[in-house]
Amino acid sequence: MRRFLLAAATAFLATTAFAADPLPSWNDTGPKQAIVQFVEKVTKQGSADFVPVPERIATFDNDGTLWAEQPAYFQLFFAIDRIKALAPKHPEWKTKEPYASVLRGDMKGLAASGEKGLLQLIAATHAGMTTDEFEQVVNDWVVNAKHPKTGKPFTEMVYQPMLELLAYLRDNGFKTFIVSGGGIEFMRPWAERVYGIPPEQVVGSMGGLKYEMRGNVPVLSKLPSLVLMDDKEGKPVGIQRNIGRRPIAAFGNSDGDLQMLQWTTAGSGARFALYVHHTDADREWAYDRKSHIGKLDKGLDEAKAKGWTVVDMKNDWKKIYPWSP
Amino acid sequence: MRRFLLAAATAFLATTAFAADPLPSWNDTGPKQAIVQFVEKVTKQGSADFVPVPERIATFDNDGTLWAEQPAYFQLFFAIDRIKALAPKHPEWKTKEPYASVLRGDMKGLAASGEKGLLQLIAATHAGMTTDEFEQVVNDWVVNAKHPKTGKPFTEMVYQPMLELLAYLRDNGFKTFIVSGGGIEFMRPWAERVYGIPPEQVVGSMGGLKYEMRGNVPVLSKLPSLVLMDDKEGKPVGIQRNIGRRPIAAFGNSDGDLQMLQWTTAGSGARFALYVHHTDADREWAYDRKSHIGKLDKGLDEAKAKGWTVVDMKNDWKKIYPWSP
Repeated sequence: MRRFLLAAATAFLATTAFAADPLPSWNDTGPKQAIVQFVEKVTKQGSADFVPVPERIATFDNDGTLWAEQPAYFQLFFAIDRIKALAPKHPEWKTKEPYASVLRGDMKGLAASGEKGLLQLIAATHAGMTTDEFEQVVNDWVVNAKHPKTGKPFTEMVYQPMLELLAYLRDNGFKTFIVSGGGIEFMRPWAERVYGIPPEQVVGSMGGLKYEMRGNVPVLSKLPSLVLMDDKEGKPVGIQRNIGRRPIAAFGNSDGDLQMLQWTTAGSGARFALYVHHTDADREWAYDRKSHIGKLDKGLDEAKAKGWTVVDMKNDWKKIYPWSP
Repeated sequence: MRRFLLAAATAFLATTAFAADPLPSWNDTGPKQAIVQFVEKVTKQGSADFVPVPERIATFDNDGTLWAEQPAYFQLFFAIDRIKALAPKHPEWKTKEPYASVLRGDMKGLAASGEKGLLQLIAATHAGMTTDEFEQVVNDWVVNAKHPKTGKPFTEMVYQPMLELLAYLRDNGFKTFIVSGGGIEFMRPWAERVYGIPPEQVVGSMGGLKYEMRGNVPVLSKLPSLVLMDDKEGKPVGIQRNIGRRPIAAFGNSDGDLQMLQWTTAGSGARFALYVHHTDADREWAYDRKSHIGKLDKGLDEAKAKGWTVVDMKNDWKKIYPWSP
């Protein structure tokens, strides 16, 4: 009886999954066809490419793949807002870089401080508090902050076609993970609500943590040290540390995702790799080989050489954001 | 229809879960009653203690909690077997500690090399190869190696009552994780088969990893450096890094688990903490406050002070191993 009911429910779900178009915001072009073909072959019992459910791991970059990343990584807007909020307690920041540039609203000055300056900014705004406190700060920011161009909350700057893809994969037994260069604790508070991805399936850059007692209450204090830079060569490392199983499908948009796509496709059996190519200056942004943010250069060449799927955003996506007309 | 079938299946599963005893190897004493009471209250819709499914995170120590740890941690037997297998390629080990003691079968000599010696042993046997190669080595060892006292494969030295507990929790919507001081990549190859816990739900001590190309093939090389010692204060850190959500239930057997139990029970809402106390010298081993392995001293005091559940193995468990009479 138990087996019968489960089988009936499973069969029914499988049927409905095919009945309606699971990817309505995708044009019926190459990428959509490649995605559906891949999912159908790995989920077909008895097929040579069949993959058991526990091994159906799919990893997604976040910035530029699930949500936008222009005119700057959204986490940078968060850091800037935090610097401004914390400034009254740090009078020395008025004359000290990179804080002074941030407080003057001088983005060029901030850019001049380079990667070192950015890391200082991240350390100053992401450390020195407990994990619970940080989660609260992120939750408060996420409901209040607005994207500088669209005026939308940042969590609405997500790509509708990718939301559909996440759901489609999950409906087909995949476990979906984020594997992002962004901070793991910056993404976890809202990833479940926005993407349906629970905290334990979010992998990202990580700072040090220290377990200690505050009175009788145990806390985890966030340290300024970096434990994992989950970008480029760090992505397969993050995948191994937090997932421990090689993905069979990976999705990215920049050279920072190249190693994740290489690692994914180097496994045996059916594999899928997809790059989102930002080609739509009207509805979103157009950038690739020369961009400082989300640079896609080597990755584009390797995708062509290896036959990976490349989404031409302008031609392959009917709709960009959930609120797009 | 879809909703009906799912609801019917769910209701049926819930009914069967209560119809048969889900914990047949547990005597009907305090610990079993406490477990069932906790699970019933957090899963009862409308109850003040109800916890939504995504938040039902349960973490388990491995050594001494899910499988035995006497006369030494099983991973040490693995390391010793590896040293012997690798010795022909390392003639210098014959005269160099801690390797020389291992090759002579001199466990006292090995013990004299202390924690430093053990870490050297782990580095020599767990690094210097790729993650794929290491997985193969572990898989080969697990099917061939035998426990020195019982002659059983180590993966059969697991506690039947804990296997039932894992299944019972999962049947009630819990996600079960291992959080162990053992090596994460030592446990992942067999945890799914033995415990039903997939690799992405195994947290353990971690060594460094390096992504690199061998010809055209990307590999992750295991480095001798330690990235996380997932013991004591390291357990809440490992939980935060790899799970990102505070467990509502935690299970351990030693002072190395104390911080995990503190961190778990310090959250709001219903919480559950359990210590397995090794009290059965006849059927298993009896040890606690003065043991070098699995020392349970501070933890036992704190469990009593805070009213945590303590399993008296001799009196609370009907059966120890799956193959016990």
